[in-house]
Amino acid sequence: MTTHTANTAVHPAWLPDAALAPLRTRTVAVLGEGVCLDTVRAELADARPAAPAEATLAVARLDASDAAAGTSDLAAALGLDPGALPTLPASGFAIVRTAGRAVVLGADDAAALRGLYALAREHAVAALRSEPHPDGVTTSAPAMPLRMLDHWDNMTVHPVMGQVERGYSGGSIFFADGEVRTDLSRVRAYARLLAATGIDAVALNNVNVHAREARLLTDGLPDVARVAAQLRAYGIRTFLSVSFGSPRLLGGLDTNDPLDPGVAAWWAEAANAVYDVVPDFGGFLVKADSEGQPGPFAYGRSHADGANVLAAALAPHGGTVLWRAFVYNHTQDWRDRSTDRARAAYDHFAPLDGAFADNVIVQVKHGPMDFQVREPLSPVIAAMPRTRVALELQVTQEYTGHQRHVCYLAPAWREYLTFPLDGERTVAEIVAGTPGGGAGQARPSHPAGGIAAVSNVGDDEFWTGHPLAQANLYAFGRLAWDPTLEPDAVLEEWIALTFAGAGPAALPRIRAALHAVMAGSWLRYEGYTAPLGVGFMVTPGTHYGPSVDGYEYSPWGTYHFADRDGVGVDRTRATGTGYTGQYPAPWRDVYESRRTCPDELLLFFHHVPYDHVLHSGKTVIQHVYDSRADAVAELDDVDAQWESLADLVGTAIPTALDTRVRERLAEQRRSAVEWRDQVRSYFFRKSGVPDATGRRIY
Amino acid sequence: MTTHTANTAVHPAWLPDAALAPLRTRTVAVLGEGVCLDTVRAELADARPAAPAEATLAVARLDASDAAAGTSDLAAALGLDPGALPTLPASGFAIVRTAGRAVVLGADDAAALRGLYALAREHAVAALRSEPHPDGVTTSAPAMPLRMLDHWDNMTVHPVMGQVERGYSGGSIFFADGEVRTDLSRVRAYARLLAATGIDAVALNNVNVHAREARLLTDGLPDVARVAAQLRAYGIRTFLSVSFGSPRLLGGLDTNDPLDPGVAAWWAEAANAVYDVVPDFGGFLVKADSEGQPGPFAYGRSHADGANVLAAALAPHGGTVLWRAFVYNHTQDWRDRSTDRARAAYDHFAPLDGAFADNVIVQVKHGPMDFQVREPLSPVIAAMPRTRVALELQVTQEYTGHQRHVCYLAPAWREYLTFPLDGERTVAEIVAGTPGGGAGQARPSHPAGGIAAVSNVGDDEFWTGHPLAQANLYAFGRLAWDPTLEPDAVLEEWIALTFAGAGPAALPRIRAALHAVMAGSWLRYEGYTAPLGVGFMVTPGTHYGPSVDGYEYSPWGTYHFADRDGVGVDRTRATGTGYTGQYPAPWRDVYESRRTCPDELLLFFHHVPYDHVLHSGKTVIQHVYDSRADAVAELDDVDAQWESLADLVGTAIPTALDTRVRERLAEQRRSAVEWRDQVRSYFFRKSGVPDATGRRIY
Repeated sequence: MTTHTANTAVHPAWLPDAALAPLRTRTVAVLGEGVCLDTVRAELADARPAAPAEATLAVARLDASDAAAGTSDLAAALGLDPGALPTLPASGFAIVRTAGRAVVLGADDAAALRGLYALAREHAVAALRSEPHPDGVTTSAPAMPLRMLDHWDNMTVHPVMGQVERGYSGGSIFFADGEVRTDLSRVRAYARLLAATGIDAVALNNVNVHAREARLLTDGLPDVARVAAQLRAYGIRTFLSVSFGSPRLLGGLDTNDPLDPGVAAWWAEAANAVYDVVPDFGGFLVKADSEGQPGPFAYGRSHADGANVLAAALAPHGGTVLWRAFVYNHTQDWRDRSTDRARAAYDHFAPLDGAFADNVIVQVKHGPMDFQVREPLSPVIAAMPRTRVALELQVTQEYTGHQRHVCYLAPAWREYLTFPLDGERTVAEIVAGTPGGGAGQARPSHPAGGIAAVSNVGDDEFWTGHPLAQANLYAFGRLAWDPTLEPDAVLEEWIALTFAGAGPAALPRIRAALHAVMAGSWLRYEGYTAPLGVGFMVTPGTHYGPSVDGYEYSPWGTYHFADRDGVGVDRTRATGTGYTGQYPAPWRDVYESRRTCPDELLLFFHHVPYDHVLHSGKTVIQHVYDSRADAVAELDDVDAQWESLADLVGTAIPTALDTRVRERLAEQRRSAVEWRDQVRSYFFRKSGVPDATGRRIY
Repeated sequence: MTTHTANTAVHPAWLPDAALAPLRTRTVAVLGEGVCLDTVRAELADARPAAPAEATLAVARLDASDAAAGTSDLAAALGLDPGALPTLPASGFAIVRTAGRAVVLGADDAAALRGLYALAREHAVAALRSEPHPDGVTTSAPAMPLRMLDHWDNMTVHPVMGQVERGYSGGSIFFADGEVRTDLSRVRAYARLLAATGIDAVALNNVNVHAREARLLTDGLPDVARVAAQLRAYGIRTFLSVSFGSPRLLGGLDTNDPLDPGVAAWWAEAANAVYDVVPDFGGFLVKADSEGQPGPFAYGRSHADGANVLAAALAPHGGTVLWRAFVYNHTQDWRDRSTDRARAAYDHFAPLDGAFADNVIVQVKHGPMDFQVREPLSPVIAAMPRTRVALELQVTQEYTGHQRHVCYLAPAWREYLTFPLDGERTVAEIVAGTPGGGAGQARPSHPAGGIAAVSNVGDDEFWTGHPLAQANLYAFGRLAWDPTLEPDAVLEEWIALTFAGAGPAALPRIRAALHAVMAGSWLRYEGYTAPLGVGFMVTPGTHYGPSVDGYEYSPWGTYHFADRDGVGVDRTRATGTGYTGQYPAPWRDVYESRRTCPDELLLFFHHVPYDHVLHSGKTVIQHVYDSRADAVAELDDVDAQWESLADLVGTAIPTALDTRVRERLAEQRRSAVEWRDQVRSYFFRKSGVPDATGRRIY
């Protein structure tokens, strides 16, 4: 039995049989022990076995224990010159190509498995480009030690929110009917997909931990162990979201005070119990004092106190606490313009730098608000040089079209990751703990944190609702592994793998069409939604579709302050909330001035009159009119591009996939037209300024 | 056993033991047969029986069969002079007072029961006013033949909407857990309360008929019969809301076409089955082709065709079809200003005048939109002189504060009922079928219809959520019986009965405080919510709390069209949707002109600039600012008035009632402040006109 066809009713995403076929037709040898090497063997079970030295594909583990004496023996066994064996960084792998042979070497068994999928990817891309990969050695290692997906999955179905909070892909793959699923074949298939990207950690349950999910930590442990076994086979560690209120809720204690010895003892016992059944358990993910979740504030304790009590419990076992920095006042008074939600995470966390235990990672959303289509980077990321920080992204399209709109997010993520937030190091370098010390570098090094993202996967036939949203999951995993990858190149990989079976005639057409549909889709989505970084303007609750004033008089701290004269939030030090002062140089000054603030963030930082002229040369109001109209107009080409593939449906493109994509494109158009017309009408009714192009406003 | 203490855990509303006690201390005799006379006997079971001629309280039935010879015998038996026996109109009753004695005579057994409650009311009011009722004969008869309450109760609980659609008083008193309740004591107590007002018909289930409720008409009939038996004991007939799609849904037919003989036969069989178990069944209430409900349009048939097929089925049994005129396009395009939801009911129904069977009553909401706090009367009411029309009101406070805000609605209802809609007859006269023919009267008579309202009752301890909202249920019943009653007088009755046990010291204080809290509460609610008749501005879905633009870009047809220059909907013939043309003279011209249109409806009929000067002398924008601020300021007195009764809590005022009222007053204030600030800020941001009084705008 092979594991690669675990669920034939489910779309194979970027690992169709066609993507693995070039490897399975070789003669193979797999050397070494480890659960992931067993997985390698299963992946290649259809292939013809061969002695290592003769195998045209060999996969081997080359870990620390093999160093020194072991390496030359291994090289000999593989029929390689000892000098051809590369040095492998931690968790890294290498692919050694010689005439007609490929040897995959992993620093551990999981790395070897990832190397196998990397080889499949290289094959697929080479086939797409008709450029065979040259001989030689390529090594690859993850940029950061933690590359995690957070599932906001609940065990029971909420009547309004569904089972997965902010999920747009059906129910949970982990849970059904209030229990962990009996059949975990879908989890296994998911782990396999993730192993082919670079993900090495998954949190199973929602950070809003309800009563049922809280018990995963206690009587749910046997089921957690079953899930962890599936993930482990693909090199993925299991995390749980836990409630800070667990000592009272589950333990019957009368307090959750993190400085209470009984509380500390309870957490230590809880951690011991977890590691008894999941020895490689990753740790706890915690949302505390946030949007109604319990936390240390109730006891007059800091978030460091809160995180550290959990960290102490996990430390003996090598576990980690991921502590979210998403703490703000969600019952703000809209009348109060001095309170600024954007400031909240920094105000809460920056003073705590240095106070967190070594096995705490503070997990920070990429922007200061909440996963908007456009936000500046969160200043918290650069504010805690003595604290491990993880960047949190959102693969699930909460504010970016619910996987009904095409919105390929890799270009956004790469912008974040490559942004030199402290003036010297990029965000990726900060969270990766890349050492400083270069000439003229004054900024301190940060300890290594990681990267996490909210998954977009559910029990949907296509995993992600919109089949093209699979690319976001793929791209997140790839960028987590290597933040310097180009979004277009990652998209190309995804196309090459996903449509590996399309054949040489169809594949270039699919590649061209999908590039046209997807590559610019994030900027297009921004184009017809909230303008110039001001954010929100979404339907309250669902966060789908336009409602320009939907959050304007709400307690959520998400305002645009549009009046008849202008729009935007004044977050300057000079006249506004002072938020710009949370940034290091040069950004504190770049954002402070309207003259230097980038157009796309202007309304995030400044309240400006409608006739303010952007760097683009357009007034703000004309930009609002033009961008919305232009972005919707682009959908004509999107539809035409997909339509151009119509003759491939039923062969290179599955009929069901085509049906789903068409259904979503139609909804995207309907919704985008609403966005265009509502935003344009709203601002026309407020400003009274006509659209200079004469296009109709309602 | 007596029935008046059916459920001691429930507030007795306007029939506390103290209200009946003055009757029960008398010596009594009850003459005649009938289930409602059995109820009279049960009400007075604690009293000491006496021979009719000696009883200080006698209740008797004096129906058509007693006329001629019978009357003098009855008079003799009662110890009355034969000439003292009044002539009783249909369904009427009389109270004959002679020194120390009271004789209640009913035209039927239900009328006799109503007379008994009327006597209790007169006692209570006399006690409140310290003015004993003089001797003599008072007769009373209902102004119209149908006085109905519609329950929008579902059998199952909707996860968002709850069990009762637009219900704010807990679950249904009829249904629980998908079934008709086993214990119907609460239904019996409800019927008793209604009998003391004037109601004679109740529809048990929601007009949006879901699959479970549809089956009340078939396998649910034994349970319907159980409910009907409870209502019958208080002179109330049972109606069911039915789905127009029943022939397909329940009967397995392949069509619901009203002209299909099989469909007609199915409805006839269904009616036969109902009358087999409920011989006095009232009939069917139908919402067809409205907000997604099935209807005759699907078969190219008219609403008259649709109603008449049901009417033919009911006619042999004396049943009636109530056919709602609430038909409009709820998927309108907000961009399209030529479509006007206000026009829809008239456009659909006026052309059908004369086409409905005699046992069809077209049920028309009081306004053309949807139970807003201020709307003009629906022109449909006057547009169908050959059709029986019932006025539909809403006791449940969907748009008037969800029974969290005090909003005594009788002043609104009396305005509607006494409005001379066709230029001669009032709305009450039109729906009552009051004959024309007076000097100079040119308008045709209408056949008698009736009045219906959506109930505000649930299984809440206080019946209606807010204890003071009981007064709306009471007032509806009283105005349905006699539309000429003064709202303040009805409020006084309600206070006198509800607090009958408060005692002579407390009662005048309660009376004064509740008048201050309640009498002007409708205008106060209007004052802080949507201005000048424009309507809505509520949170979409819930319809509670402000969201000025909440429905502005929606498909629901409910817009205010505010821009930086002005606000309102142009419904004139000259430049707008032409809706004013649906009114008879003089209203078609009164509403057409800004100079004659009443201020409170200005924005319903006209789009005007913010500096338009009202008849009040204020500009529209200053009116918006002032009314909202003034109305909220009035809440200080409301709170103070209730607070002034604090020393009575625990004695004259039950503690639980006080707690509930205080909780609601606090929420009303919170919500009213939101209304004030959001509406003021919204219009300031749009208009740029400062509040002339300098009050703060955000």
